[in-house]
Amino acid sequence: MKNFPVVLNFPVRWGEMDALGHVNNTVFFRWFESARIAFFDQTGFPTRPEGDLSPILAQTKCDFLKPIVYPADVTIGARVGRIGTSSLVMEYEVEVDDSSVVARGEAVVVLVDWRTGKSHPIPDAVREKIALLGHEGTSSSS
Amino acid sequence: MKNFPVVLNFPVRWGEMDALGHVNNTVFFRWFESARIAFFDQTGFPTRPEGDLSPILAQTKCDFLKPIVYPADVTIGARVGRIGTSSLVMEYEVEVDDSSVVARGEAVVVLVDWRTGKSHPIPDAVREKIALLGHEGTSSSS
Amino acid sequence: MKNFPVVLNFPVRWGEMDALGHVNNTVFFRWFESARIAFFDQTGFPTRPEGDLSPILAQTKCDFLKPIVYPADVTIGARVGRIGTSSLVMEYEVEVDDSSVVARGEAVVVLVDWRTGKSHPIPDAVREKIALLGHEGTSSSS
Amino acid sequence: MKNFPVVLNFPVRWGEMDALGHVNNTVFFRWFESARIAFFDQTGFPTRPEGDLSPILAQTKCDFLKPIVYPADVTIGARVGRIGTSSLVMEYEVEVDDSSVVARGEAVVVLVDWRTGKSHPIPDAVREKIALLGHEGTSSSS
Repeated sequence: MKNFPVVLNFPVRWGEMDALGHVNNTVFFRWFESARIAFFDQTGFPTRPEGDLSPILAQTKCDFLKPIVYPADVTIGARVGRIGTSSLVMEYEVEVDDSSVVARGEAVVVLVDWRTGKSHPIPDAVREKIALLGHEGTSSSS
Repeated sequence: MKNFPVVLNFPVRWGEMDALGHVNNTVFFRWFESARIAFFDQTGFPTRPEGDLSPILAQTKCDFLKPIVYPADVTIGARVGRIGTSSLVMEYEVEVDDSSVVARGEAVVVLVDWRTGKSHPIPDAVREKIALLGHEGTSSSS
Repeated sequence: MKNFPVVLNFPVRWGEMDALGHVNNTVFFRWFESARIAFFDQTGFPTRPEGDLSPILAQTKCDFLKPIVYPADVTIGARVGRIGTSSLVMEYEVEVDDSSVVARGEAVVVLVDWRTGKSHPIPDAVREKIALLGHEGTSSSS
Repeated sequence: MKNFPVVLNFPVRWGEMDALGHVNNTVFFRWFESARIAFFDQTGFPTRPEGDLSPILAQTKCDFLKPIVYPADVTIGARVGRIGTSSLVMEYEVEVDDSSVVARGEAVVVLVDWRTGKSHPIPDAVREKIALLGHEGTSSSS
């Protein structure tokens, strides 16, 4: 996880497994979401529609490399892969106990102005925090 | 939904919305899963590890075009986009009340032999049912 | 379901099963919630904090009589058991395909004024609609 | 949490909030489940149908005292309230950051023999571990 500035750690919950006896595919996207929100919080991205600007999830995907079975401790890393004028690509990696990578994911996030419904340039202040966070910023456990 | 042989219809549940007031991204993957399982059932794909062969979800993704707000009725269509020796690509489309497409998705499914942990050719019987189902087969509401 | 004025029908989703191979206990509360919201909508109870009054879930419980396995069609009935000045008790019943009752539930709902954080008398208009709905009102399928 | 021998700690996930902007009621039952499984693991209760004996959740309930809003750290405590021949009552308590109790819950668990479908006496070995665990046993963080 050296190259992921935002890192979350938590135990798998038993109820996250499905009838096949391993963690259900939808759960990975919940984990990605948690990392994404943590990233937003650390960089000043607004996550609620209280202001006029809010991120929109335009696309997300996940590659499942190995099944996860409870009990297990999971580490989720998130970083910015590419950044454009009003959008960015987040990259995720999921590791379990033994540091083996069990999944990789990606999300395309667009900053939108709710008043106009259109994309809005990512503010410089946020952009700078993302640059500062870099790929090896302070990890935050939660 | 003319080109989707497997079609599910159901109302959005209030609890599927998140704090932003629209259906959470993880829910779309739950819907895709339901369509995938329905497709497996209709084509004879095994969905539980009772036999030796079982499908593995290798990758999935979703493009979110418009937010969905409760109350709404949702239609999910699924079809096979490409089929290889031991894997296939499923394509999904999500429509709401007014027939507007609100999301599109994809999943890569690999047939695996649990005894060996390796991929296994899709049986001809299943392959034929998939061909019969085609892109305009019988729709099934659930 | 004769005595339940609000009735929802929907198929069980495969992903609602847990590692034990039957529908997870948390899912029953999601179903109850759907019936509760439908009840609110039919009786004019506010369900969002847009106004000053909003229902608060003070307590809920479920008795699990039989496990449910996918595939199955589920029917959820909801009715008002008791009604007080600013609170009411909802009663739920869950049936599967063969009309056997598989679960019973209850919820205590309190009407709260967000400005004061205190309970607020249920408006007469809502109270009348609840009385009209009675125990054998119009069923609504969703 | 002095009187709860099984204690879990974890951060609330953003996605656990619903459209009302606080943690959804179904999530509390997921948390209770995690504590219940941890309790089973620590006392030797079987949690999977691999053997002949397995716990069945017969009833569960929750009293919601205060809403929880992300971000927050949650502590879940579980203990045995009463124990009978083949069943026991678990009691749960949920605290947030400032140690205020935000919810209390209960679950009735019955030990069942899958071969006969009937209740089965809780083995003495498990009973002794429960007694040893007591109300102030070793806490386990996860």
